[in-house]
Amino acid sequence: MRITLLAGGVGGARFTRGLRDHLAVHGTPDGEPAELTVVVNTGDDLWLDGLRVCPDLDTVMYTLGGAVHEGQGWGRADETRRVSAELHAYGLGWDWFTLGDLDIATHVARTELLRRGIPLGAVTERLCARWEPGARLLPMSDQPVETHVELVGGRVVHFEEWWVRHRAAVPARRFLQVGVEDAVPGPGVLEALHDADVVLLPPSNPVVSIGTILGVPGIRDALAATAAPVVGVSPIVGGSPVRGMADACLTAIGVETSAAAVGAHYGARRAAEGGEGLDVAGSGLLDGWLVDVADAGAVPALERLGLRARAVPLLMGDDAGPDGRTATGAIVDAALGLAGVPA
Amino acid sequence: MRITLLAGGVGGARFTRGLRDHLAVHGTPDGEPAELTVVVNTGDDLWLDGLRVCPDLDTVMYTLGGAVHEGQGWGRADETRRVSAELHAYGLGWDWFTLGDLDIATHVARTELLRRGIPLGAVTERLCARWEPGARLLPMSDQPVETHVELVGGRVVHFEEWWVRHRAAVPARRFLQVGVEDAVPGPGVLEALHDADVVLLPPSNPVVSIGTILGVPGIRDALAATAAPVVGVSPIVGGSPVRGMADACLTAIGVETSAAAVGAHYGARRAAEGGEGLDVAGSGLLDGWLVDVADAGAVPALERLGLRARAVPLLMGDDAGPDGRTATGAIVDAALGLAGVPA
Repeated sequence: MRITLLAGGVGGARFTRGLRDHLAVHGTPDGEPAELTVVVNTGDDLWLDGLRVCPDLDTVMYTLGGAVHEGQGWGRADETRRVSAELHAYGLGWDWFTLGDLDIATHVARTELLRRGIPLGAVTERLCARWEPGARLLPMSDQPVETHVELVGGRVVHFEEWWVRHRAAVPARRFLQVGVEDAVPGPGVLEALHDADVVLLPPSNPVVSIGTILGVPGIRDALAATAAPVVGVSPIVGGSPVRGMADACLTAIGVETSAAAVGAHYGARRAAEGGEGLDVAGSGLLDGWLVDVADAGAVPALERLGLRARAVPLLMGDDAGPDGRTATGAIVDAALGLAGVPA
Repeated sequence: MRITLLAGGVGGARFTRGLRDHLAVHGTPDGEPAELTVVVNTGDDLWLDGLRVCPDLDTVMYTLGGAVHEGQGWGRADETRRVSAELHAYGLGWDWFTLGDLDIATHVARTELLRRGIPLGAVTERLCARWEPGARLLPMSDQPVETHVELVGGRVVHFEEWWVRHRAAVPARRFLQVGVEDAVPGPGVLEALHDADVVLLPPSNPVVSIGTILGVPGIRDALAATAAPVVGVSPIVGGSPVRGMADACLTAIGVETSAAAVGAHYGARRAAEGGEGLDVAGSGLLDGWLVDVADAGAVPALERLGLRARAVPLLMGDDAGPDGRTATGAIVDAALGLAGVPA
């Protein structure tokens, strides 16, 4: 069974790991081996002291590779900061964005391979060969597309500066995808959407993670056109992001921070039977939308939009429960159920 | 008093440190502050995993900055190797050339500054601002000039591969200065030779350190033309290099491994009074040549070549002796004495 995911960092990484592990233990609905492809946001990528840093690719790679710092959700476990301290002593680096030594090695390796002329997708494949992530990681594009943020007041900063330095507390007016006009989907991305048996949108940021991926010319159309069912998992629970600052992003694009509004923002692919039919945003990407039990009240309205909707506990977890399933595994089963491929 | 030195790595770095510290304690012969300028060999420089590594510049910088690993003579004290281990895990790096984490930070910083378009000399000045070396470090050239070694058999390798990987045990046929035709002396280099009160050649490798510096068009002529006395310290004691594998380098260029032969190789600037007058190699760079007491027997022959020669203990050391001078300080006094500016 071919499952394709569009993912940002921590949320997408943890969901994909839970999916991989759940299917490895309990099998796929069709009994075929799970072939997982993760199309990863690269809009957060940046140059730091001459090194190419790809935060989301690394978070997914480290998480699936068993090397992530579980406590913070990104970066490497058992990290040290000797190189960064030296760079600061030389008057370089940014004090609000400090890289660990093990992580820096990944950036040195990536930068070296990129400078040899190897495209980012092939570089990612080479880096992943070490980690055996059990999924294919595809950058959304081999071309650099950097998300910049226009702040209220007019100043424009790199997404990471807004996100990490300002903790998204400075109101954003809009998000710019610098370089997106010249970007094409990375090798394999459109095929992964076209050939999928199921497409899943993990609980990643709908604006600056999944939204950024969808901004690459061709990807939104491929998602809209795929024959596979498309099911998303809400990153908003009870009016707040489960993690991160998606609320600040949603506010900037005029979408309410609620599971229902985000589902409507993605939109339904098909008209509701005998219903209103048209989704609010007119984007029409989803067949199913999974919300948390706290948002069960939104299910009828979502169904009126044409979405198959269901409310289940969305707090992810990797410990097996009484039925042998992890919390993330239960979410996966519910998502596959909404997709029409029940376990 | 302006003192200019031409230096390679460990020998040049330790001599310069001893010189600086000796003059700081005992004063200069003319009572003026010591202004030290070190013209440093960059022929050993190399790209490693996309990082620009300058072994001799770093050895001099770390040594004068009090950060060197004293035991090995190069690299940083209190070093770790986490980044290199990661790079090896990604299938990068060279197993015979492993960089420490603190050292890698210097290379990341240098590479970033070079990629911003800042020339190596200005980059070096910026890196040194942190270390306060008490001397001006000038790369011999801002242009890359890399020493390659043609081995017996015809294969050509980077100097560091021959030196570090093969421990110079594979016979060399000749040394190539790749890029030297397009190189010009670094900013300040010719002025430092022209304006010096004394020029000293520390006990650095006469072939691949000082010889490489002299290969940059214009530097040899500036040294030959300076009004300052030029005095060298033999790196060969009793027929062997004090440190390193200068013997393999000398053999490759057909010079015997002896203090007398190296002195003759540099050559005398002036004819001996009533003597034979011409130096063997015809290069004519030295006024004085300091040899070890083990080589005292060579002094008359060196004098017949037109060199002021003297034999003193050449084993460097930084502990003060009964007369308050360090072993290196005593060598410095002897060198300045040969230069005609006795302490």
